[in-house]
Amino acid sequence: MAKKIITGGTIATATDTFKADILIEDEKIVQIATKIEDKDAQVIDATGKYVFPGGIDPHTHLDMPFNNTVTDDDWESGTIAAAFGGTTTILDFVLTAGETRLSDAVIKWNEKSKGKAAIDYGYHLMISDLNEETEKELPLLLEKEGITSIKVFMAYAKEFQASDRTLYKAFKIGKETGSVVMVHCENGSVIDELVEEAKLAGNTAPIYHALTRPPEIEGEATKRAIELAHVAGAKLYVVHVTCKEAVDEIIKAREKGYDVYGETCPPYLTLDQTALEKPDFEGAKYVWSPPLRPKSHQEPLWNALKAKQLQTIGSDQCSFNFNGKKQLGINDFSKIPNGGPFIEDRFSVLYSEGVAKGRISLNDFVDMISTNAAKIFGLYPQKGTIAIGTDADIVIFDPNAKRTISAENHHMNVDYNAFEGLEVLGEPVSVLLRGEFVIKDKQFVGSLDYGKYLKRKVAKEQ
Amino acid sequence: MAKKIITGGTIATATDTFKADILIEDEKIVQIATKIEDKDAQVIDATGKYVFPGGIDPHTHLDMPFNNTVTDDDWESGTIAAAFGGTTTILDFVLTAGETRLSDAVIKWNEKSKGKAAIDYGYHLMISDLNEETEKELPLLLEKEGITSIKVFMAYAKEFQASDRTLYKAFKIGKETGSVVMVHCENGSVIDELVEEAKLAGNTAPIYHALTRPPEIEGEATKRAIELAHVAGAKLYVVHVTCKEAVDEIIKAREKGYDVYGETCPPYLTLDQTALEKPDFEGAKYVWSPPLRPKSHQEPLWNALKAKQLQTIGSDQCSFNFNGKKQLGINDFSKIPNGGPFIEDRFSVLYSEGVAKGRISLNDFVDMISTNAAKIFGLYPQKGTIAIGTDADIVIFDPNAKRTISAENHHMNVDYNAFEGLEVLGEPVSVLLRGEFVIKDKQFVGSLDYGKYLKRKVAKEQ
Amino acid sequence: MAKKIITGGTIATATDTFKADILIEDEKIVQIATKIEDKDAQVIDATGKYVFPGGIDPHTHLDMPFNNTVTDDDWESGTIAAAFGGTTTILDFVLTAGETRLSDAVIKWNEKSKGKAAIDYGYHLMISDLNEETEKELPLLLEKEGITSIKVFMAYAKEFQASDRTLYKAFKIGKETGSVVMVHCENGSVIDELVEEAKLAGNTAPIYHALTRPPEIEGEATKRAIELAHVAGAKLYVVHVTCKEAVDEIIKAREKGYDVYGETCPPYLTLDQTALEKPDFEGAKYVWSPPLRPKSHQEPLWNALKAKQLQTIGSDQCSFNFNGKKQLGINDFSKIPNGGPFIEDRFSVLYSEGVAKGRISLNDFVDMISTNAAKIFGLYPQKGTIAIGTDADIVIFDPNAKRTISAENHHMNVDYNAFEGLEVLGEPVSVLLRGEFVIKDKQFVGSLDYGKYLKRKVAKEQ
Amino acid sequence: MAKKIITGGTIATATDTFKADILIEDEKIVQIATKIEDKDAQVIDATGKYVFPGGIDPHTHLDMPFNNTVTDDDWESGTIAAAFGGTTTILDFVLTAGETRLSDAVIKWNEKSKGKAAIDYGYHLMISDLNEETEKELPLLLEKEGITSIKVFMAYAKEFQASDRTLYKAFKIGKETGSVVMVHCENGSVIDELVEEAKLAGNTAPIYHALTRPPEIEGEATKRAIELAHVAGAKLYVVHVTCKEAVDEIIKAREKGYDVYGETCPPYLTLDQTALEKPDFEGAKYVWSPPLRPKSHQEPLWNALKAKQLQTIGSDQCSFNFNGKKQLGINDFSKIPNGGPFIEDRFSVLYSEGVAKGRISLNDFVDMISTNAAKIFGLYPQKGTIAIGTDADIVIFDPNAKRTISAENHHMNVDYNAFEGLEVLGEPVSVLLRGEFVIKDKQFVGSLDYGKYLKRKVAKEQ
Ligand SMILES: [Zn+2]
Ligand SMILES: [Zn+2]
Ligand SMILES: [Zn+2]
Ligand SMILES: [Zn+2]
Ligand SMILES: [Zn+2]
Ligand SMILES: [Zn+2]
Ligand SMILES: [Zn+2]
Ligand SMILES: [Zn+2]
Repeated sequence: MAKKIITGGTIATATDTFKADILIEDEKIVQIATKIEDKDAQVIDATGKYVFPGGIDPHTHLDMPFNNTVTDDDWESGTIAAAFGGTTTILDFVLTAGETRLSDAVIKWNEKSKGKAAIDYGYHLMISDLNEETEKELPLLLEKEGITSIKVFMAYAKEFQASDRTLYKAFKIGKETGSVVMVHCENGSVIDELVEEAKLAGNTAPIYHALTRPPEIEGEATKRAIELAHVAGAKLYVVHVTCKEAVDEIIKAREKGYDVYGETCPPYLTLDQTALEKPDFEGAKYVWSPPLRPKSHQEPLWNALKAKQLQTIGSDQCSFNFNGKKQLGINDFSKIPNGGPFIEDRFSVLYSEGVAKGRISLNDFVDMISTNAAKIFGLYPQKGTIAIGTDADIVIFDPNAKRTISAENHHMNVDYNAFEGLEVLGEPVSVLLRGEFVIKDKQFVGSLDYGKYLKRKVAKEQ
Repeated sequence: MAKKIITGGTIATATDTFKADILIEDEKIVQIATKIEDKDAQVIDATGKYVFPGGIDPHTHLDMPFNNTVTDDDWESGTIAAAFGGTTTILDFVLTAGETRLSDAVIKWNEKSKGKAAIDYGYHLMISDLNEETEKELPLLLEKEGITSIKVFMAYAKEFQASDRTLYKAFKIGKETGSVVMVHCENGSVIDELVEEAKLAGNTAPIYHALTRPPEIEGEATKRAIELAHVAGAKLYVVHVTCKEAVDEIIKAREKGYDVYGETCPPYLTLDQTALEKPDFEGAKYVWSPPLRPKSHQEPLWNALKAKQLQTIGSDQCSFNFNGKKQLGINDFSKIPNGGPFIEDRFSVLYSEGVAKGRISLNDFVDMISTNAAKIFGLYPQKGTIAIGTDADIVIFDPNAKRTISAENHHMNVDYNAFEGLEVLGEPVSVLLRGEFVIKDKQFVGSLDYGKYLKRKVAKEQ
Repeated sequence: MAKKIITGGTIATATDTFKADILIEDEKIVQIATKIEDKDAQVIDATGKYVFPGGIDPHTHLDMPFNNTVTDDDWESGTIAAAFGGTTTILDFVLTAGETRLSDAVIKWNEKSKGKAAIDYGYHLMISDLNEETEKELPLLLEKEGITSIKVFMAYAKEFQASDRTLYKAFKIGKETGSVVMVHCENGSVIDELVEEAKLAGNTAPIYHALTRPPEIEGEATKRAIELAHVAGAKLYVVHVTCKEAVDEIIKAREKGYDVYGETCPPYLTLDQTALEKPDFEGAKYVWSPPLRPKSHQEPLWNALKAKQLQTIGSDQCSFNFNGKKQLGINDFSKIPNGGPFIEDRFSVLYSEGVAKGRISLNDFVDMISTNAAKIFGLYPQKGTIAIGTDADIVIFDPNAKRTISAENHHMNVDYNAFEGLEVLGEPVSVLLRGEFVIKDKQFVGSLDYGKYLKRKVAKEQ
Repeated sequence: MAKKIITGGTIATATDTFKADILIEDEKIVQIATKIEDKDAQVIDATGKYVFPGGIDPHTHLDMPFNNTVTDDDWESGTIAAAFGGTTTILDFVLTAGETRLSDAVIKWNEKSKGKAAIDYGYHLMISDLNEETEKELPLLLEKEGITSIKVFMAYAKEFQASDRTLYKAFKIGKETGSVVMVHCENGSVIDELVEEAKLAGNTAPIYHALTRPPEIEGEATKRAIELAHVAGAKLYVVHVTCKEAVDEIIKAREKGYDVYGETCPPYLTLDQTALEKPDFEGAKYVWSPPLRPKSHQEPLWNALKAKQLQTIGSDQCSFNFNGKKQLGINDFSKIPNGGPFIEDRFSVLYSEGVAKGRISLNDFVDMISTNAAKIFGLYPQKGTIAIGTDADIVIFDPNAKRTISAENHHMNVDYNAFEGLEVLGEPVSVLLRGEFVIKDKQFVGSLDYGKYLKRKVAKEQ
């Protein structure tokens, strides 16, 4: 691989913003300097552009069976769309529900991702139940596969929901192995009852998806996860925080010194519950869990990001076509597959709505979109920043580009875009992964066998 | 000035930790790379050491008249001691009380610092009263002198205390000029009454200094400053936060999206109120304001640092000899000059008690000791980090050195050390300011006319 | 005086609701029983009616000079209107601002009330400044006059506002004498600045009265009063609580065991800030301080009443005619006399909006409208309940009466009613004071020399 | 039954304190007056005594199988001891776990109480699981038996713990029937794991009972119960609140207007966790759930009582002899039967530690010990106060009696007293139930077939 120089750009890390050139050699950043010249190197002009570390999406579901169907984006379309959006690493959830041995699930996931990954990736291990055997297997499997994160659901009573006992055991194993435990915090048992009530009352439209999952129930589960993690001594990562109730609990926990991290997602920051009331069943496009909230919840989320009380932005990519898939719930909102297509727009929506609108700083943006995830999930210092010795995962970003998000030109394999019509400022122009172009001048030039599985190790400090 | 290479060290910024060499040219960092070779450059070996950005102390009082006396450290001893301690920039408070024109105070401060500054420095402007004239002068003076921070006292009723009206006006001018307003938050009027009560009751020992300034009164004033700043639309920086009551208010304000920053100081993190009860009047050594608190307040402060709810560490250097000065209050605690000597140990105490004891991360340490202050006070990107184009203010720090803090070997011009006997891990070995050694192998090699006054400009984002 | 029997009614106290007869003799209740027969007694039929203890209004301003004018209701019209409204005792504020000796103010107030009081009354003493002399006089005067409550203003910078020093001293005297200290909690200094800003910007309409007194500023002052009272060891009574910010502080203080009471007023529970925007300068009718708030603040007030975190309902009667008085501010909202006419409707509005709408219980209503005030202000057990030995102050109330509040038929001496058009359920039919009818079948039958000044003593417990 | 006059005493209700005589006729209070004379009536002299409404204990477990044994107090010894202690009504929990039909449990309980009740009583219905049948049966049974309260456990994973689904369903039925739902709030699943961990680590002493049930886990469950009740629209009554964590959640809920009540118990107010460390296995005497807490939790509980954020005092009577019963756990704390003997001392301990020590007012004492329970559980106005028409359940209480609590002279059928050695001020001298003496001059004179089952109806308001 030839050396490369990125010249003329403004480098932005989670701390710093400065003009400098970057020299890349053997997949790594080896020099940063005022001006770099090297005849053997390919020169990439980044004048007028930001040079960001590649985005890290800590929350994706590619090629995942769910709600009696399967997501429409598999690893191929998913990782290509991610790359277009400025993301060079994803962490995908390996489903273990139904497997006798947890390792079987990893094998399945390797089959899904094999030869279909345009970008680097790692796995989180989803645990639904811990019995005597899986309790023993789990720490060994984490070690063997280089996985440093366990995922537990407090929702989806019929599919994935763990009991409090399993949740607590997962925290204990998190403590012992140093793994972070990620939790989907909603009280699934109560939601099931509310859904039944709604259906009995003849309330079948998509909006009832939101109304049967009230924010109080997310706040409750968040508090529960926090205290159980604290008693076990584990690090907790609350996925997809959507509401003031949950933010409040996270802030209080951190005030007490608990090791709690929080993730939110672009739709919760920009869309609201009224989207589920769109006519012609279009509300179904906005059905995912936890649901969109009333608009008043957006400001607490932005405030928590600004105050560094939420650390990361996940896409929670989990795409289902409107036609054929979302429409399965036309007569019953509970049959609408849960999830949405966000992997491509995560980066740009946060930049445009956050940085360009003055809500968060440029450096905090980098922290949220890349660095914090790298640190929390054991990818740092290989990933997540621009510094000597790190992987040359780089996004060259035009902060002045104006464009409108639309399914017509997105790269996800899904027939709608939840941000359809949103005008954004800023666009990834070129994206490099370990020194190689994946996206070059807005064209995909990567290869599906270049993305590597990332064995991780436990982060020593946050 | 010759080029310099710092080689073999581990660079730590507020975000990153990595091994690399640094090339310095014309006072600036111009290259960071895996390995730098340059025959013209002086090579400094930092193998086994951390390479930190120079410390920024946002809170010093050098050569300051106070309590009918004057601090024992002037700009010479103060800046030299700072340099020994790893600090390359200080921001000192210019007292304007008693001046007809605010600019006269700046002139006086220039006389104090002239030819006596071993390190770079800037000023905060202390405002006690805003009348029709000073209200007009203030914005002009800030602009002219490159000062981006105003300081207001809610305490010291007889000396400096501003009325709520002046405080609010200062916030308005802060808003208009983009300056941050720093506030000493204690209710001075109530403290005066409590002091009178104590003295009437015959309670004259040093411990009554603490007992007449209860934490509730700091919490009250903190809340007041927060809401007044919010109504005015200003950025607030709460100096020397000492207690749970104040931390709680800051966290709540940040949760609501207010622009509030908080600073704490090493003694509040490590010492407690019982120090004021030391026999033989030695408690007087620990008299400063706000006072040391019961030990239970330390954990909330550490938690708030870890959770990024407090941003900076100030020394609040304000030293008075025990003999002759502190002893003025032997019969009346209210006559003990308020203040202590911390400029030298700020950096090492935070590293040792914070990083080495696992309470905060290495990168967060850098943020607190340097980067955040640079950003908040408009010194960034010239100061506060290690990146291409920044001033080559660098601390080479041996994390394995063990030593005991003592007045016997400290460099401050004061006859005691508040951390006397504290064993710390880690020590600054060499310190460079704009590429020149100030401390070299633990020896002062700097010059008193090298330190420069820093004209600042308003930070665009935090 | 002849004995009286009230028969057939449903007695409601702060705890109990039961059917029974009451026997009154020599101004007192002497018997309560299933059925009372006494040939010598006058029988009053209360069948189908509630029998309540007479209302106690702890917050009135009658015949008070203010804002360069004087309230339109004096003691005659004020106490008659109070009686119509079910109130048999008022506590009025004695203004001491401008008096050399505090006792002179009491003399003035005696002149105002003399021969004009249809109902019983007591005084609170308003303190604006405590100097060496008034500090000595105050405890003696309280004792001599049987006054157990001191009032301090944190607002009205130009008229009444006390410094924090005076506020704290008042709390100390409160502590020493056992008096409760009542505080108007708004930061007057900041408000003055905000008013100046608004006027400079040409914003002179009534709505700017509300916009220049934001709820944050009430919350700030409430917190300040709470902490100062706590440090002094005094009992605090926060008058006219209007907003979530203040309620939050009161609840937190009570959670910590502080002796803090809160009062709210009917307009804050039922009207909102949009009233100040009424056309044709009618918004001026709704100008008082603290101002009406956005509607979202009503629910926290009702919740706090229900949860017993606010204890009393004051009228804050302070009436100014729209014509001639309110209109003084036609070109400048800050010239609109502050205050409104509420003494007559306090009781009925709370019953109708509170009890009849299911927001508070019947017994809690009695507590808020009468009993709690009696206990807090040292009137209990003479006043505030229906029990053996208490004054026979009784309201016979028809809970089924429907009527519409209107200036056309109210009894206050003012040309508008802030609740104009409000339909209420329930009406006082007859009112007895110490066994004598003041209102009989909705007619005033009382006498202006029957109302007695009440010497109070410090309540031992609440 | 002859008429009775109680003369010369000071009557105290939840609101009032006054001297008066009481006339009792046909089990009821028919007259209260300054002086009552009736030749046909028996006169009881209460000079120098308080006359209280009979205590209502809302939380007892008599003759209950638990932890493989059965409580040592059955209905006979339990109700007699209650009467000695000033309690005239108890509400006992009917265990339904293991019954096919819930009504079978009621039948069993009727057998236990039949002919053994010296005082009046009602039942709460404990629900562990709601299946299709019991879901239908429950509302009908509540109606039929006059039961207005459902109890659910979130703890005791192996015995009684309900799933969140059952808990939520219970709240729904609570909402539909107007019943209050009582919840034991601890996370039983986590506790089970912590107990296993402790035992595996060889930690078998009684103190580990407390250490395996941390307050965070009570706080978590309390929050969960609160939010589930809120979503269902039900009234929640949190039994035996022990810690700051739980109190905080209750206060926040009430601040939001939720219908939440809280009960605490004398041992949590007066004893602390160190009791479990008593030598010679005596710590086992203090094993109940939730456990005693560190002393710092007492003040928040007292504060919450004073601030009316907790409403009632339950005994949680559940007595097991030390010899033979508690000793079952000599080698394993988890085998110690959970519970303690408190039915007799509930009233006196609250009076002595609360009223006599100035922590709560006399009237609030009556509210907590009697009136509030009557109102919440649908016994009011028949029970819970002294007013015309109520049952003549009366305690004549000598506030000046001094005595020492001891197993040597208590009347419970258990070989130790948890308050052994506690000196208390105040003692019930005589106790009447529906006009008949149960205790007369400290002697039991009642009859085991006089106590009546109380059919209750839903309280219309709290
Ligand atoms: Zn999820
Ligand atoms: Zn997900
Ligand atoms: Zn200060
Ligand atoms: Zn200072
Ligand atoms: Zn007022
Ligand atoms: Zn007023
Ligand atoms: Zn229980
Ligand atoms: Zn129990």
